[in-house]
Amino acid sequence: MKRKIDINCDLGESYGEFKIGNDEKIMSHITSANIACGFHAGDPTTIARTIDIAKKHGVAVGAHPGYPDIMGFGRREMQLTSEEAKNYTLYQVSALRGFAQAASLSLQHVKPHGALYNMAVKDEKLSKAIVEAIKALDTGLIVFAPPNSTLSEAAAKNGLRVAHEFFADRAYNPNGSLISRKQSNAIIQDPKKVVERVVKAVEDGTVVAANGEVLDVGKVHTICVHGDTPTALELAETIKKRLVRAGIEVKPVSSFI
Amino acid sequence: MKRKIDINCDLGESYGEFKIGNDEKIMSHITSANIACGFHAGDPTTIARTIDIAKKHGVAVGAHPGYPDIMGFGRREMQLTSEEAKNYTLYQVSALRGFAQAASLSLQHVKPHGALYNMAVKDEKLSKAIVEAIKALDTGLIVFAPPNSTLSEAAAKNGLRVAHEFFADRAYNPNGSLISRKQSNAIIQDPKKVVERVVKAVEDGTVVAANGEVLDVGKVHTICVHGDTPTALELAETIKKRLVRAGIEVKPVSSFI
Amino acid sequence: MKRKIDINCDLGESYGEFKIGNDEKIMSHITSANIACGFHAGDPTTIARTIDIAKKHGVAVGAHPGYPDIMGFGRREMQLTSEEAKNYTLYQVSALRGFAQAASLSLQHVKPHGALYNMAVKDEKLSKAIVEAIKALDTGLIVFAPPNSTLSEAAAKNGLRVAHEFFADRAYNPNGSLISRKQSNAIIQDPKKVVERVVKAVEDGTVVAANGEVLDVGKVHTICVHGDTPTALELAETIKKRLVRAGIEVKPVSSFI
Amino acid sequence: MKRKIDINCDLGESYGEFKIGNDEKIMSHITSANIACGFHAGDPTTIARTIDIAKKHGVAVGAHPGYPDIMGFGRREMQLTSEEAKNYTLYQVSALRGFAQAASLSLQHVKPHGALYNMAVKDEKLSKAIVEAIKALDTGLIVFAPPNSTLSEAAAKNGLRVAHEFFADRAYNPNGSLISRKQSNAIIQDPKKVVERVVKAVEDGTVVAANGEVLDVGKVHTICVHGDTPTALELAETIKKRLVRAGIEVKPVSSFI
Repeated sequence: MKRKIDINCDLGESYGEFKIGNDEKIMSHITSANIACGFHAGDPTTIARTIDIAKKHGVAVGAHPGYPDIMGFGRREMQLTSEEAKNYTLYQVSALRGFAQAASLSLQHVKPHGALYNMAVKDEKLSKAIVEAIKALDTGLIVFAPPNSTLSEAAAKNGLRVAHEFFADRAYNPNGSLISRKQSNAIIQDPKKVVERVVKAVEDGTVVAANGEVLDVGKVHTICVHGDTPTALELAETIKKRLVRAGIEVKPVSSFI
Repeated sequence: MKRKIDINCDLGESYGEFKIGNDEKIMSHITSANIACGFHAGDPTTIARTIDIAKKHGVAVGAHPGYPDIMGFGRREMQLTSEEAKNYTLYQVSALRGFAQAASLSLQHVKPHGALYNMAVKDEKLSKAIVEAIKALDTGLIVFAPPNSTLSEAAAKNGLRVAHEFFADRAYNPNGSLISRKQSNAIIQDPKKVVERVVKAVEDGTVVAANGEVLDVGKVHTICVHGDTPTALELAETIKKRLVRAGIEVKPVSSFI
Repeated sequence: MKRKIDINCDLGESYGEFKIGNDEKIMSHITSANIACGFHAGDPTTIARTIDIAKKHGVAVGAHPGYPDIMGFGRREMQLTSEEAKNYTLYQVSALRGFAQAASLSLQHVKPHGALYNMAVKDEKLSKAIVEAIKALDTGLIVFAPPNSTLSEAAAKNGLRVAHEFFADRAYNPNGSLISRKQSNAIIQDPKKVVERVVKAVEDGTVVAANGEVLDVGKVHTICVHGDTPTALELAETIKKRLVRAGIEVKPVSSFI
Repeated sequence: MKRKIDINCDLGESYGEFKIGNDEKIMSHITSANIACGFHAGDPTTIARTIDIAKKHGVAVGAHPGYPDIMGFGRREMQLTSEEAKNYTLYQVSALRGFAQAASLSLQHVKPHGALYNMAVKDEKLSKAIVEAIKALDTGLIVFAPPNSTLSEAAAKNGLRVAHEFFADRAYNPNGSLISRKQSNAIIQDPKKVVERVVKAVEDGTVVAANGEVLDVGKVHTICVHGDTPTALELAETIKKRLVRAGIEVKPVSSFI
């Protein structure tokens, strides 16, 4: 059987007149869209338009809930109670799901955004709160998470499917976490290197960490790419082509997980 | 066959630490709750708690979407495009519906809040946008609207059920619109008078307007009461008792419309 | 004596990670910056950075207060009471002034933004509220307003200096108001035409309205240009050069009004 | 010479229609008001009204800046950069100062709110950012801080006056920090005990910590009281009376520090 992989990207991150990203252009190079839900970005009209574009390109749609912080784009940690985290997730995923339904699509997945993702990856209470919200809405929703993370464990324990995510151009620590964006070596700049890393991760389930150690990333289901710069667009295109050339089928994760 | 009537109230209007209303107390005197959806009031945790209280009391839940204006409590007109109005409604109703579902309830109705309601009652484009959003989500949702209003017509034209609403303690103009809150005679202060008005509206479909003319309010399906003051609580209780005494059955509008 | 003119531009309209405009580039072609104050755009860090850039280029700084509506970028009319309008202006202008002071600059002017400007131009109560707020803070502040507008009259009546503004690339109605952005002919596209219009407005105090009539724009003190597209940048540069070539001195309005 | 003490209270914490507190009533029992600046509470109209009430009662006004989090009332830690913390403080204090000036008052002090206060008390970078913002605006402003805290040190190092604050009804840890509100013994419930604690803190500079140890609180300049419940109001009144009876003069801190 042919290997299969999904490519995901954060989209719909404009806010009213504040325009971010190249949503229309990136859509032809990806298979799953993580759509901002209004708390860190993504006003309702942006959501509706992004879903229309995804539909046109046959891209599966997912909710990308974040902290309630437009000013900080959801990138700043906030101290939430479990009740707040659960309800904020429920609110955002429900809202997004309504737009999918209005466009005759169903929601495929949920991927927390920014600081909420980074916290959930290691915080058990937070992961649990997020997963409970998702489960309360639809047990068929797939949770995007790093392999071996607190978030992936919480999802699995609650009977939700998990798509293990590999970050195409982010450098890894030997323990599987990402090198912080504040460090200069956080992003792999060489496109050729990024593409080969992706193929290796998909085929072998390994990546070379920043310190040279070989890291086991398990079975990768989805590759996270960025689409907000012209270079990123090209990179996404190249990654997709290279995977196809390697005989790997690129399609929405719900079709093979 | 016994006459039937619904009693509705705006609820869930707290916002984080900003507490408004007596949600727990009013619930035993009403049959439908219009729950704020986060744009003018109602953070996600407030929504979840309000729905729990409604469930406990067997009160039907509805979405109460408003303008995106926490600072102005959704009471200030905002100039929205049709696309914005449709998407803001879709967003809020979807979000609210998710909480209902998580509590194993289904959403009964939608009633726009404050300035959005007042505008929709007379603005054709706005009514159409709101109704289209509701229809895209669930054609079984009931729209709360004044009889003979632009909003009720838009809902009916789109095949949605409409619950005609009568305001228990608000004075009416002879044309069926409400006397503005800015005028001193906007609120009927005498509880006895309020109660008799309600019974008359339900039984005869008429109310005496502020200028003394008898106004036809048609077949009334739901009575709007307020619950944010101790007096309002008592009034709601009295209205319910008086209706029951008059042989009228008080129950959620979805059961008889 | 040499004629003098000011060139102003709306700046600092980013919001956190949401980046708008080419603030750094436009600064060398203008003499007054209208800086967003946080209600429709402009988070505190954006304000601080914009003021630093203005200082570096010797550009005078002004406050650009708007409606409290990040999602709508202050372009949607909101129904405010006079008390609200006054206090929202006071809040925003004060906040901006603090950043100017921290950079050892003083605030030169106030220009309302978007829908607030468009409303104030014709609404007496709103103009009065805005002007009273400005006056309460600093009677030396200059108000930017169209000639013969309600706003300019309110400012003059309250003893504030008014800078009459001419919009470089916006088509005018014969009554002096701007053609709405919703109409296709709202923006003059031909750069050559824009530049000649500006020179004519400054030298003769007239402009040809959209219907061909010659409109009296009075004594123009400041030209409003846009800086958010590469074309706009070039246009601003050309306007400045052309004015200088015509023997007109281009400098901050506070130096000659 | 007579001992002198200031009594401060957090005020102006309403937000539009969301009403909080008994500002009018508490004003006669305090000498300094910490007024919310719009980020965690306090819309512009609330600010204006609170300052009017303070003026009427001869209460000195201070800025009470918080995290940008209306939904969480500024009680949730947020991860800010130093640049953000500095600019958020500058923004809020400037805005508040404008209202004081419009009422012909000058700003007396700054006291960070909620989680911002709790973080600043122990975080050097954050304290420094806050203090730099205050200093950039007015070197005459007094900073309210616990004795021996990171915040009080940062203020002193930057040449600002510091008012050492004692919390009337909050239990202390032996190290001088407050027992967390999440613990059941955080608040001293017995009014008599609270009052005696206050007198002892003012006269002897000591308080008995939760574990029974005697804690040195140094020279206390200002007592923090709450005013949001009827009991709190009475307590504030009693504290003031008791201090006066003990021969201590109760007046704004700027008059004696």
